[in-house]
Amino acid sequence: MIQNFDYHTPTRVIFGKGVVEQLPEVMKPLGKRILLAYGGGSIKRMGLYQKVKDLLKDFEITELSGIEPNPKYDPSVLEGVRLCKENDIEAILSVGGGSVLDCCKAIAGGAKYDGDPWDLITYKEETKAALPIVDIMTLAATGSEYDAGVVISRTETNDKVPYQSPYLYPVCSFLYPTYTFTVNAKHTAAGVADAFNHVLEQYFCSDHNMVADGFCEALLRTLIHYAPIAIAKPDDYEARAEIMYACMYGCNGILELGNSPSGWPMHAIEHALSAYYDITHGEGLAIITPRWMRHILSPRTMERFVSLGTAIYGIDPNLPEKEIAEQTIDRTYKFFESIGLPMHLRQVGIDESRLREMAAHVKEDVMQQGEQYVVLSEDDVYGILHDSL
Amino acid sequence: MIQNFDYHTPTRVIFGKGVVEQLPEVMKPLGKRILLAYGGGSIKRMGLYQKVKDLLKDFEITELSGIEPNPKYDPSVLEGVRLCKENDIEAILSVGGGSVLDCCKAIAGGAKYDGDPWDLITYKEETKAALPIVDIMTLAATGSEYDAGVVISRTETNDKVPYQSPYLYPVCSFLYPTYTFTVNAKHTAAGVADAFNHVLEQYFCSDHNMVADGFCEALLRTLIHYAPIAIAKPDDYEARAEIMYACMYGCNGILELGNSPSGWPMHAIEHALSAYYDITHGEGLAIITPRWMRHILSPRTMERFVSLGTAIYGIDPNLPEKEIAEQTIDRTYKFFESIGLPMHLRQVGIDESRLREMAAHVKEDVMQQGEQYVVLSEDDVYGILHDSL
Repeated sequence: MIQNFDYHTPTRVIFGKGVVEQLPEVMKPLGKRILLAYGGGSIKRMGLYQKVKDLLKDFEITELSGIEPNPKYDPSVLEGVRLCKENDIEAILSVGGGSVLDCCKAIAGGAKYDGDPWDLITYKEETKAALPIVDIMTLAATGSEYDAGVVISRTETNDKVPYQSPYLYPVCSFLYPTYTFTVNAKHTAAGVADAFNHVLEQYFCSDHNMVADGFCEALLRTLIHYAPIAIAKPDDYEARAEIMYACMYGCNGILELGNSPSGWPMHAIEHALSAYYDITHGEGLAIITPRWMRHILSPRTMERFVSLGTAIYGIDPNLPEKEIAEQTIDRTYKFFESIGLPMHLRQVGIDESRLREMAAHVKEDVMQQGEQYVVLSEDDVYGILHDSL
Repeated sequence: MIQNFDYHTPTRVIFGKGVVEQLPEVMKPLGKRILLAYGGGSIKRMGLYQKVKDLLKDFEITELSGIEPNPKYDPSVLEGVRLCKENDIEAILSVGGGSVLDCCKAIAGGAKYDGDPWDLITYKEETKAALPIVDIMTLAATGSEYDAGVVISRTETNDKVPYQSPYLYPVCSFLYPTYTFTVNAKHTAAGVADAFNHVLEQYFCSDHNMVADGFCEALLRTLIHYAPIAIAKPDDYEARAEIMYACMYGCNGILELGNSPSGWPMHAIEHALSAYYDITHGEGLAIITPRWMRHILSPRTMERFVSLGTAIYGIDPNLPEKEIAEQTIDRTYKFFESIGLPMHLRQVGIDESRLREMAAHVKEDVMQQGEQYVVLSEDDVYGILHDSL
């Protein structure tokens, strides 16, 4: 049965070739004093840094650089909040991937709050305002460009926590697929795995509907079709563009409108992996996904596997259901493997030493709270992790 | 090749059972003086009128009733604008279907403009502001609840023209499928045909992409599956809900993101029909659709028919392309016929006497301007109309 929903994504998306030229007119109504945030040197190498500086020559720019993958509360969020307060920043421009943007969202909330921003991230205090955010994406993966969510890591406590507030939707996201041409094969594949998993997290639920299913399947087919092309030919505009477009819908809720909650279990497990070992999020998800699927396969969940496998892999619907489900899991594993993703934890430097500790931590992950499609015990999580070695 | 796009749908949608209870909290920030607009007596018969009055007991309500299907510039838009100005209205609440809402949008623009609102509707003057609009939908069809578009008819000139402005997005749309239980079979089917056609108008284009195709196909499959159920069992919540949800995406542009423009030719033709004969829009579209499809079928357009027919009707992809295309057109005709729609112009009171005149009028329809997927001459339009008799 279709569930009630309350949906609102106010973000404007400007997508395509050359769109970044519109940056000044988008920024102008937001203010003159801008925090320009980015990660490492890639935006300088591709000329985007200079391009942005040229476009914003009439603005007062304060820079925050060096934002990490799996962005860190300390130093990046704290440093960004300090810069915003000291320089009376009016708007934030994120140039980079989802990590940079997530960091900027946390900064945007923190800049409008008098206390410790961790209070907001952990919902101890309600987020009641945020600086406006604009972003230029250089990686197709997280969907952060079209959602109001953030994932922030705190190293000293091995925490990697999700944080949401309606104030955190970007005002405008620029998606210029050409800026993803220089993303290497490893991160292209990891981005695809991240987006693929976002869709699966929402597809596997008790109450679903035909519109949601069809939207999810369309995105998965797109990722399956274009990922190998983008990896084989990194400057294939169409492949990069279709992937970038598909990724945008990952996390803003549109894929689960009318569905019952799923609990996002694979993300909960992966967040422990990257909190403990700082691995690439999409790689962790690729490893976890087929093991989680196998773990939850049961007569109750069978219909989801059959629906998925026939729709995205074209598996013959006349086969026995169990066989369709098994093939669906195998095809998912092989798809990830075929685009060069590591498929074992050992390949990303994780051995069995801390699996128990991580399984315990997952139970505390807020994503594991609330309704779950298949409730996982600590032993279940341990089993999935162990199968992933 | 995927095209550039600039997408923004700021409307909040609150969907599901009982959601109308949230009306006061949604209206409150918009102002105290509300124009309550509706059509005939159906909202009174179903108790919704009284419900709204009770919920808004702390507001100052001015009423505009009697808004027509194919809403008219004179008297409804003009009367609404007058009421807004005289009563210093701060927000508009539309309770009804797409016609009531379209009328309210035109009023919202006109109320903030000093001259003749027809200037705005015909783009002689730019719309620079509008009153905020909230709606409660009682019909699943037009998608007006999630778009910034309007279609307004002017009887004395046989005009039925589309009008768009970013100021016309509803602030919030309440979609409570239960309110559509009393929609009779004729208007349920017409609403489905309208939504079905919205999708096709966007599917048939030169440059398309896998995400857009998949989204379109998902909506069409949903409509095909649930329309017969809703007609056979008008109080089937799930069927009504899936249809209402699917209809919402018809016109806000999400289905054609990255696609090249199509020109919306079937709407241009139908607008002439209902401008001249005031027929039900969805019925006109149902009649035109298969004739237009047959008219534009060619080697160049073949791929669209094959893609559509295999995806939504499950036609065997191994058949010859021409046969798949023919079956796709036949299946579309039969689907509309099966849900009780008239499939000939004569059934809705239109004979050949004014076909030439209408064909000439269509050429002037603004929807026929700009890029078209298949350019139609006046003779082509006449041919399609003649085939539809």
